[in-house]
Amino acid sequence: MTSLTIEYRVENDLIGSLKVPANALYGIQTQRAIELYPVNGEKRLSDYPQLIKGMLRVKKIAAQVNLNIGELEPLLAQGILKVINELLLGLPLDQFPIHACHGGGGISTNMNINEVIANKVNRDFFSSALGHYTPLHPNDHINLNNSTSDAQTTACHFAVIEQWQTLEASIDALTNEFKTQGKKWQYEQKIARTCLQDAVEMSFSDLFSGYQSLIERNKNRLEQDISELYQINLGGNIIGRKGDCSDAFFEQIIDQVNDEMCSQLFRHNDNLFDASQNHDDLISIANRLDLFARGLMKIAKDFRLMSSGPETGFGELSIPAVQPGSSAMPGKVNPTIPEYLVQCCMQVCGRCYSIQMTQDHGELDLNVWQSIVIHNLLDVMTCLENGIKAFTQHCLANVRPNSERNEYNINTLIPTLIRLKKEKGYTYASDIFKQSQGDIAFIRKHLIIKT
Amino acid sequence: MTSLTIEYRVENDLIGSLKVPANALYGIQTQRAIELYPVNGEKRLSDYPQLIKGMLRVKKIAAQVNLNIGELEPLLAQGILKVINELLLGLPLDQFPIHACHGGGGISTNMNINEVIANKVNRDFFSSALGHYTPLHPNDHINLNNSTSDAQTTACHFAVIEQWQTLEASIDALTNEFKTQGKKWQYEQKIARTCLQDAVEMSFSDLFSGYQSLIERNKNRLEQDISELYQINLGGNIIGRKGDCSDAFFEQIIDQVNDEMCSQLFRHNDNLFDASQNHDDLISIANRLDLFARGLMKIAKDFRLMSSGPETGFGELSIPAVQPGSSAMPGKVNPTIPEYLVQCCMQVCGRCYSIQMTQDHGELDLNVWQSIVIHNLLDVMTCLENGIKAFTQHCLANVRPNSERNEYNINTLIPTLIRLKKEKGYTYASDIFKQSQGDIAFIRKHLIIKT
Amino acid sequence: MTSLTIEYRVENDLIGSLKVPANALYGIQTQRAIELYPVNGEKRLSDYPQLIKGMLRVKKIAAQVNLNIGELEPLLAQGILKVINELLLGLPLDQFPIHACHGGGGISTNMNINEVIANKVNRDFFSSALGHYTPLHPNDHINLNNSTSDAQTTACHFAVIEQWQTLEASIDALTNEFKTQGKKWQYEQKIARTCLQDAVEMSFSDLFSGYQSLIERNKNRLEQDISELYQINLGGNIIGRKGDCSDAFFEQIIDQVNDEMCSQLFRHNDNLFDASQNHDDLISIANRLDLFARGLMKIAKDFRLMSSGPETGFGELSIPAVQPGSSAMPGKVNPTIPEYLVQCCMQVCGRCYSIQMTQDHGELDLNVWQSIVIHNLLDVMTCLENGIKAFTQHCLANVRPNSERNEYNINTLIPTLIRLKKEKGYTYASDIFKQSQGDIAFIRKHLIIKT
Amino acid sequence: MTSLTIEYRVENDLIGSLKVPANALYGIQTQRAIELYPVNGEKRLSDYPQLIKGMLRVKKIAAQVNLNIGELEPLLAQGILKVINELLLGLPLDQFPIHACHGGGGISTNMNINEVIANKVNRDFFSSALGHYTPLHPNDHINLNNSTSDAQTTACHFAVIEQWQTLEASIDALTNEFKTQGKKWQYEQKIARTCLQDAVEMSFSDLFSGYQSLIERNKNRLEQDISELYQINLGGNIIGRKGDCSDAFFEQIIDQVNDEMCSQLFRHNDNLFDASQNHDDLISIANRLDLFARGLMKIAKDFRLMSSGPETGFGELSIPAVQPGSSAMPGKVNPTIPEYLVQCCMQVCGRCYSIQMTQDHGELDLNVWQSIVIHNLLDVMTCLENGIKAFTQHCLANVRPNSERNEYNINTLIPTLIRLKKEKGYTYASDIFKQSQGDIAFIRKHLIIKT
Repeated sequence: MTSLTIEYRVENDLIGSLKVPANALYGIQTQRAIELYPVNGEKRLSDYPQLIKGMLRVKKIAAQVNLNIGELEPLLAQGILKVINELLLGLPLDQFPIHACHGGGGISTNMNINEVIANKVNRDFFSSALGHYTPLHPNDHINLNNSTSDAQTTACHFAVIEQWQTLEASIDALTNEFKTQGKKWQYEQKIARTCLQDAVEMSFSDLFSGYQSLIERNKNRLEQDISELYQINLGGNIIGRKGDCSDAFFEQIIDQVNDEMCSQLFRHNDNLFDASQNHDDLISIANRLDLFARGLMKIAKDFRLMSSGPETGFGELSIPAVQPGSSAMPGKVNPTIPEYLVQCCMQVCGRCYSIQMTQDHGELDLNVWQSIVIHNLLDVMTCLENGIKAFTQHCLANVRPNSERNEYNINTLIPTLIRLKKEKGYTYASDIFKQSQGDIAFIRKHLIIKT
Repeated sequence: MTSLTIEYRVENDLIGSLKVPANALYGIQTQRAIELYPVNGEKRLSDYPQLIKGMLRVKKIAAQVNLNIGELEPLLAQGILKVINELLLGLPLDQFPIHACHGGGGISTNMNINEVIANKVNRDFFSSALGHYTPLHPNDHINLNNSTSDAQTTACHFAVIEQWQTLEASIDALTNEFKTQGKKWQYEQKIARTCLQDAVEMSFSDLFSGYQSLIERNKNRLEQDISELYQINLGGNIIGRKGDCSDAFFEQIIDQVNDEMCSQLFRHNDNLFDASQNHDDLISIANRLDLFARGLMKIAKDFRLMSSGPETGFGELSIPAVQPGSSAMPGKVNPTIPEYLVQCCMQVCGRCYSIQMTQDHGELDLNVWQSIVIHNLLDVMTCLENGIKAFTQHCLANVRPNSERNEYNINTLIPTLIRLKKEKGYTYASDIFKQSQGDIAFIRKHLIIKT
Repeated sequence: MTSLTIEYRVENDLIGSLKVPANALYGIQTQRAIELYPVNGEKRLSDYPQLIKGMLRVKKIAAQVNLNIGELEPLLAQGILKVINELLLGLPLDQFPIHACHGGGGISTNMNINEVIANKVNRDFFSSALGHYTPLHPNDHINLNNSTSDAQTTACHFAVIEQWQTLEASIDALTNEFKTQGKKWQYEQKIARTCLQDAVEMSFSDLFSGYQSLIERNKNRLEQDISELYQINLGGNIIGRKGDCSDAFFEQIIDQVNDEMCSQLFRHNDNLFDASQNHDDLISIANRLDLFARGLMKIAKDFRLMSSGPETGFGELSIPAVQPGSSAMPGKVNPTIPEYLVQCCMQVCGRCYSIQMTQDHGELDLNVWQSIVIHNLLDVMTCLENGIKAFTQHCLANVRPNSERNEYNINTLIPTLIRLKKEKGYTYASDIFKQSQGDIAFIRKHLIIKT
Repeated sequence: MTSLTIEYRVENDLIGSLKVPANALYGIQTQRAIELYPVNGEKRLSDYPQLIKGMLRVKKIAAQVNLNIGELEPLLAQGILKVINELLLGLPLDQFPIHACHGGGGISTNMNINEVIANKVNRDFFSSALGHYTPLHPNDHINLNNSTSDAQTTACHFAVIEQWQTLEASIDALTNEFKTQGKKWQYEQKIARTCLQDAVEMSFSDLFSGYQSLIERNKNRLEQDISELYQINLGGNIIGRKGDCSDAFFEQIIDQVNDEMCSQLFRHNDNLFDASQNHDDLISIANRLDLFARGLMKIAKDFRLMSSGPETGFGELSIPAVQPGSSAMPGKVNPTIPEYLVQCCMQVCGRCYSIQMTQDHGELDLNVWQSIVIHNLLDVMTCLENGIKAFTQHCLANVRPNSERNEYNINTLIPTLIRLKKEKGYTYASDIFKQSQGDIAFIRKHLIIKT
């Protein structure tokens, strides 16, 4: 950060003065965060463009309402609005270099955003030097009628809603692929197992319909929870008191949000104190994603099992060979795509664990661990999308049942016995089983319907 | 189990013969489970009467439908129905002594139930000796058109729906108490804090309304998920194939369930293969309860903080002294009730963890870890109910704000500065703050509205 | 607890007066805990006899030292010592009915113990009425120079050390059985797999030696951590200040502990403040047990996989049929014993999760969540012991490799190719593989050593 | 990755042909991984230079031994050794672009390394075109006598041992700072609390000595576990069979490792099958770090509590103001540094959770989830180091007890009563307490030693 050739300006705040790179759009408070919280390979705010965009939209919405209600001079407001539109079109990610986590409830994130906007407006519209904060001040104007707590919480909702679009699309593609494959192989029978032991026959269509149903149900649950996010606390400043922003601001803010977000769904939180005390709407989504991930792990592991072999395993389903499976064993092909999905899901579970901790470690009037929630949640959504896409495209789309093996499997001892039991009852079938001494031909003789 | 004076009968199955206590209603398969799975202080099936009742109801419903469709002789069916009604009125818990977990998908639970019913009917209605299974056979008749997988899954749904009633009542009582206390102390102001640092004033009513909102939202989420449980897979035998029970049975079973349960909500699962592969409807409830528990931990810990003292802590809220707080320190009173609630919640989180593992460890056509899910889930519901009840009754109902302390708190430096900032902006207030050198009187002079 | 025929006595404390069952050895503080903390099927102190015994031993040790140093009158001390010896010989479990968790740092547990001892001594040795606490007082005499914090922490250490003996024995039996089976089947070759795909041949002895090594390493880690428990804080009263007990008491207590426990290993904690702030020595053991449990889950699941079949699975290892495997499918035998082990391990992981939470939720000078730690830890040890014993005895002791299948497996394509690669390099083997078009005979021709 | 101006070469493998950037040092197998496993903001192999360095060292060691035992031609071996030394001096991170997780047991990581070395040697020493793999072949030569499983596992050990050095240094600095501060404030008394309630007085030195002891104990545990990592399985190829590499290689490899690593501690794993089946030596370190992180969370939260205020909280310890604490509240200073430490620890716990899952999801002869283990483990170590450094430097080094407040606190009711109890017993003190009606002066009169 501090090579010899960089030039600096000096800024001041309540704590003291500090050198800031001369051309930085961010200011002293961002600089403090850079120096206080070592990044060292961990993630930065700049790794979460959705969150930065969410914050910028919040500031734009606030500026527009502040203009409307006469609390912000038109020239200042117009500067802010123009600058935010520019930023949204091309995020200068290097201007958001702080650690994604930096203590508190996100104060450094909020101030990084405020400073970048203020400096850019002052420079571009008022030819003011960077770091001087006139005419626009990060706190007095950009933060006007909003604060870290409500601005960041609202931005989190925006970010998750946005990222849900792409995750949802990948889920839909997976569901559709299961539908396609189920239809394609609907006449292929296979053995079903309970406790990993031979049971009865079913079709690949049956099996895949179960997977599809699991995925759709999880998606529905997620949608349900995503819809909770349209409750926002913008204007419920600091700890939920409406009175910390202008009444007029509070009244108009929701309409402006819906305008900006092209939605009609946004509304105030039912209880603004609660919205400051807790972020369990976000945590609940993490729980949903965790449960979904575990379901996907189950499916991915099923694919590994069903394709185990080629000769000494279950061998009932061929999955595409995507890469040589070993550096030491020629001819070996491994189920690395399902394994990648499992790995993505393991990452999901761990990150959701961090998210969950934030609820029981919350206290009093503001849950200060929101950074942990939002960054992990966005990561989780990315992880899942990655895993789902790779699995859909590189594995599921080209599976092929091994008909010969499946035909053999469904005519083995146990499924045959169960057919007999279905025709003649448990006790009868048990007796024949004992008489048969394991000879399937003997059992088959007692069947009415011969397959 | 095997003292010298106990008499035994000998029963046989596919594995061999075994001694069963002569008077036991259960039979050889239950006896095997007793011998195979050491209990050693862990929980037994008998510790879950709701689950036993759920299983008995499933068997009753099945018998009634089997009678209706002509697959069960009237005399046998009537015996079953009468015996189950008797059992439901007075559960002989000692007849269900097996370990709550016993491998597989609950086979021993199902057979324990089947054997007790069969033996009791045979003995009471047909004067048949215990262990002979004529005319009624546990598998051929009690298990007719149902099997472990669908019977137990349905019974789990029944059990959770039933236990939800009492948990819900305790949650409602908690909510109401927060409402009552909020109203009672609505004119009591207190300091609000962010990052544990002084912030602004709020009322106890504000604070409690946030708690109330959190609790209600969690309850709503739970209700949503409980409603998923009205989807059942009874008749989706073994791994989800409808064809493993009679078509007539499958068609009539839902009506009979609704009759028995005095409901109109029960319906078939959308996909029966899925219902056998996954129990994520139950796991999802665990996730909801886990999140709720963490919210309650937060509230309980807030109460500890607010009542910390008596002199060197926050001291803003008195909670009732319920027991001497120390064996060594006279006069000490501890917040043991909030702490008990925290402990209950910690138990909840751990048990939900076990439940979650069952999803990613599921495989193929039947998730065999259902026993882990249901027993922990019922325990979790009990734990929460215990904690909530104790907290509502022994703590919340008798809290009392410490007015003097609260009055002092809300007129300290920071809340005063924030009033100034609200009137005159951030920069102005910051300047006055610097000039004041921490002298509140100086700051107060610049306020328009003096409190 | 309160049927009409029970007679009561009335006791008083700082909070007020309360009715206690007339014949109860416990007193008012225990009675308070009974009424405050609903049990409702959860565990009681009486479910943890090891812990009760540990507490009794602590009180015995304290009384002896108090006698030695002249702080306790000989008559009183002798009464205490005799009574505790009696109690240790036959624990009256119904006298310890309180919820295992009851807020605080275990105050009710400590007082339940103190009251039972005091009442019994007063009644048996001084013909004093129950509930009068003269000449012996629970706090002044039984609690003399010890308090809840150090007494319970020390008792926890005693309890875990004691229970480790039986758990360790079960682990040793498991290790020995793997050794026995490994030797028995040392000439049986089997296929080894990576990513569930065919790889190379190995012997059952190789495989089992790996399992054995895992188990022994985990046991060694556990032993290492158990040895930490010989550090105790008895005499580090309240929050770690030595000065809260007599200097003489502090100096003599360790010798007395070693005497009572027939050990030479017990010693003071290096830092007594730390010992009050944290119980991570116990939590660390939970972590070790959690990791061990996950290792056992892996092994148990391997057994399920290797014995999957009988015909459509891996089928390389037969495990004993211990019970009919299905209520609906005759002839089916399930790996319920490995599954029971998995279930025990899932319980372990969940309980360890609760235990872990107590560390990050600890605060300041006393970690008050010790009850969660100790009860879950003792449960975890029981769970593991149960699972290990059942697995060793009912599964591992009677496994049998399926030689025909294993012989076939090790001569399939991939292991054959790997032999070729070993002889002639990766590129050569890859070329032959391509030429072979999967024909093993063709590949085998290029081998130097024909198997 | 694929803009129009990039030129490509075409490479072939068993799966087919693929375009690789013409100048890439990596080859077709790396290219496959790039295309199969979307990164999308998640971490790449290049984010773990310690792991890359570990792998390079393994390959260097293997090449040296292969040279020594005559299995690698001197010219080839020298090329490898020179190239690896060059790479170690300046890692070309862009040549390791694959997703950190990519299914399987790390095959793509191993091949990425093999390909980069092979291509660079071929190009630099033999003027061979990139992608031609003559004279050096990634599998035949770089992978000679080692394979993915043992090479990567060994490299993981190297990487963790290396990163431990810096983490350990940061822990030592923290311990020393607690020692320094404890000494600095040894005469400052403060109130100690149990259950957040006033208890007795202690010194800051006492308190900090407890923290120091916790940290040192955790460090000792970590060192113990790190020392397990000196057991390596290099030469235990594929699944633990020694025979998959040359006997001579196996015999000489350890000496070469110790040479390269300037150590005398490295040795073969006791059981190589176990070493392939399980990576619990790494997981155990994660458990240790998780427990340590929870301890640090506790300490960080204590600092927040003790510094809560400035006026309405505990206010007994001032921590340095490092940044303005609010965008909306002038004058507010928040404990963001302790909060940052808490956040780092929450990240640690979540990542350790992912790591733990890999043990119970392992199966059979090779645990394929090692990538999840190593990347999360290295991240965890970084997180902890970040949090510890920031806390040590920006918080702990400049704390200051608030003497006035502490003086007041230790002379309040409860500590005074406890002094009385210490002098005259529990019952006496209780009586005085009742008589006093909370008047401290009255209680103080009965004290022998007046403070």
